[in-house]
Amino acid sequence: MTEKRLSRRRAIGIAGAGVAGVGIAGVTGAALRGAFDPPLSAGASPSDAVDFHGEHQAGITTEVPDRLHFVAFDVVTKDRARLVELLQDWTAAAARMTAGQDAGVIGAVNGSPEAPPDDTGEALSLPPSGLTLTVGFGPSLFRDADGRDRFGLAERRPAALADLPRFPGEALRPEISGGDLCVQACANDPQVAVHAIRNLARIGMGVVSVRWSQLGFGRTSSTSRDQATPRNLFGFKDGTANLKIEDTALLREQLWVQPGDGPEWMTGGAYLVTRKIRMIIETWDRTSLGEQEELVGRAKGSGAPLGQHDEFDPINLKATGPDDRPRITETAHVRLAHPDQNNGARLLRRGYNYVDGSDGLGRLDAGLFFIAYQRDPRRQFVPIQTQLARHDGLNEYLRHVSSGLFACPPGVREPGDFWGRALFD
Amino acid sequence: MTEKRLSRRRAIGIAGAGVAGVGIAGVTGAALRGAFDPPLSAGASPSDAVDFHGEHQAGITTEVPDRLHFVAFDVVTKDRARLVELLQDWTAAAARMTAGQDAGVIGAVNGSPEAPPDDTGEALSLPPSGLTLTVGFGPSLFRDADGRDRFGLAERRPAALADLPRFPGEALRPEISGGDLCVQACANDPQVAVHAIRNLARIGMGVVSVRWSQLGFGRTSSTSRDQATPRNLFGFKDGTANLKIEDTALLREQLWVQPGDGPEWMTGGAYLVTRKIRMIIETWDRTSLGEQEELVGRAKGSGAPLGQHDEFDPINLKATGPDDRPRITETAHVRLAHPDQNNGARLLRRGYNYVDGSDGLGRLDAGLFFIAYQRDPRRQFVPIQTQLARHDGLNEYLRHVSSGLFACPPGVREPGDFWGRALFD
Repeated sequence: MTEKRLSRRRAIGIAGAGVAGVGIAGVTGAALRGAFDPPLSAGASPSDAVDFHGEHQAGITTEVPDRLHFVAFDVVTKDRARLVELLQDWTAAAARMTAGQDAGVIGAVNGSPEAPPDDTGEALSLPPSGLTLTVGFGPSLFRDADGRDRFGLAERRPAALADLPRFPGEALRPEISGGDLCVQACANDPQVAVHAIRNLARIGMGVVSVRWSQLGFGRTSSTSRDQATPRNLFGFKDGTANLKIEDTALLREQLWVQPGDGPEWMTGGAYLVTRKIRMIIETWDRTSLGEQEELVGRAKGSGAPLGQHDEFDPINLKATGPDDRPRITETAHVRLAHPDQNNGARLLRRGYNYVDGSDGLGRLDAGLFFIAYQRDPRRQFVPIQTQLARHDGLNEYLRHVSSGLFACPPGVREPGDFWGRALFD
Repeated sequence: MTEKRLSRRRAIGIAGAGVAGVGIAGVTGAALRGAFDPPLSAGASPSDAVDFHGEHQAGITTEVPDRLHFVAFDVVTKDRARLVELLQDWTAAAARMTAGQDAGVIGAVNGSPEAPPDDTGEALSLPPSGLTLTVGFGPSLFRDADGRDRFGLAERRPAALADLPRFPGEALRPEISGGDLCVQACANDPQVAVHAIRNLARIGMGVVSVRWSQLGFGRTSSTSRDQATPRNLFGFKDGTANLKIEDTALLREQLWVQPGDGPEWMTGGAYLVTRKIRMIIETWDRTSLGEQEELVGRAKGSGAPLGQHDEFDPINLKATGPDDRPRITETAHVRLAHPDQNNGARLLRRGYNYVDGSDGLGRLDAGLFFIAYQRDPRRQFVPIQTQLARHDGLNEYLRHVSSGLFACPPGVREPGDFWGRALFD
């Protein structure tokens, strides 16, 4: 075991062995409090920890680690104060966990050795693993499906958080769509991402209830030019033309909510759209390479736009082939999604591949969990997806089965502040 | 991108860019054949490839990598020759993929550029990642639920492959249990494990159909003393007392089928039992640390047996505490599963944690995908599980929802040989 793998607190291990011999009756509060104290910083290697505090939430432009656990919650209390308290508790736990610590200190909250541990334990001894936790507020938090303003937030709903229109061909399942709150956990180790979501759900017991949750692997986008472009389950490079952290001016223009865009509490935040896109991979796998490349508009191997040679060569929508047909057809995915076809609109994507077992019809239940951050979905995701839903040749191999829309507030600037404070002020 | 990440063939990338410009009409067979040729060994770094050929199948005692994709298939043909051909094709593809190559060479099989690629592409440029592929034959392959001997194998069914009895409390879902064939894919990268299963399913189209499939992360056992013991979703170290590759004599006695045990075709193989064990983690998380430790029989932090100090200290079932009660209670998991309580029976476990989203009732659908290899389930898994199902205090927090039983034949000794050849000879 390397020193790096010791960064989560080890005290529980040592003290745990010490108290084990006396059995349940002999466990003392003092021993347990000691066991669950925060680790000495000397023992921690923060090298793969991502800063939790900052102007923006981590997990948006942060380099995309390979594993995802995304969860949407319903708020089950009607008590605004309890919701605020939860956001405070979550923020404290998120700051701890992203630093490679446990979710909570047992003695501090429960005060009794007979109480359940304040951390579930499965990430003990695992390093921070690049964990980021990003929170978002769904439209139903502001006004629910029955039109109720449960938390006195209806007037603070941003216009940009407008319900998405119905797109042609989508087959959304309501039970895995929407949600009052969401948390996106990204990490290099799925055990660390799952641990974080599970502990937030545990802390939220009685206040929130898990509505749906999705695991992902094999990120399908890069948010930095330092990251190689990964492949989706169509076998193609995905995210070549993504907004990247190096695009400073574009990030201001396309990603971060600016002063004057809407309610001030969202300034520095971003809007998140999630779409679970089932891929009919068995049909795709019977399609010829040439047709696959024509549908996408890129070469499968290199990722180069058709008519070009390198992955990052610009897409030339006007180029024609020897037969005078456009090299990138009218229904090619890269043409329809291109900023030139969408008033310059772009997205910061950080989606993941998923496999959820099989579908009972002899096929793998697999596809893309699409995640896109943006400044205003009305000018970005909605027009782009409208184009794609109408014309994309890939639609034959796709089905949108889940949809989510969330307002992700700006970052937590310092300890003591909490997720979404300005919304509740 | 490091050299190690280039070990899968890159030719598709280079040639792909070259042919992209001419569009689908201009793609030539020669260009594609070139594009999909096997990589030069000079470009490959086999450092994290596991040998496919050998006396035993890889993926049993092989050190456990962190990710799993397990699939069970139904055979949908009645044609024995097609089944044999599939096993031959699968073996060839498995040998390629575990070496970090693609599943197949496009020109060689299909012979036409308008044919679908013989590899789906999503693992291009990824290293072998410790991939192992392990095949097994279910009882229904020998005689199906309607009593039919579809492939003339009924007389070759080993007595040890006896249907598992019904255990108290289990809530098995038939649609995610059983199967004629199984393949276990373990790898350090889930994209590599998923790619392998997806391509075997693709190759098997028309011969087999996916019955169920399970992803796992965070292995819950070690098979080598070099590996640290990981934690399950109860937060406890799991697999401390597992059979390990260093236990040479025990592996002969407890794991590998020996000459004379049954039909000769299984000599050198092992029997596999899978159980998907849902954990009711929300209830568990409300249980006190002391009670959790009493139910398991180990300290949560260190993993030490209660009454001992270190994880690997022997379990003393006779020790009593100051109150004269047994330190490890009569219903503690480690007591009931202990070899001394089960005629010396042991298992080689290599299970994984899973999260399958949520259950529609506000809870994560999470638990343990239990995988155990053994010489004879009638003397090993069945008596141990009978004890556990009757008495284990953990049962309150567990539910067995899927079960699988498979005869895993010996290894493929050399190229040209194939999985299960001796069964069909």
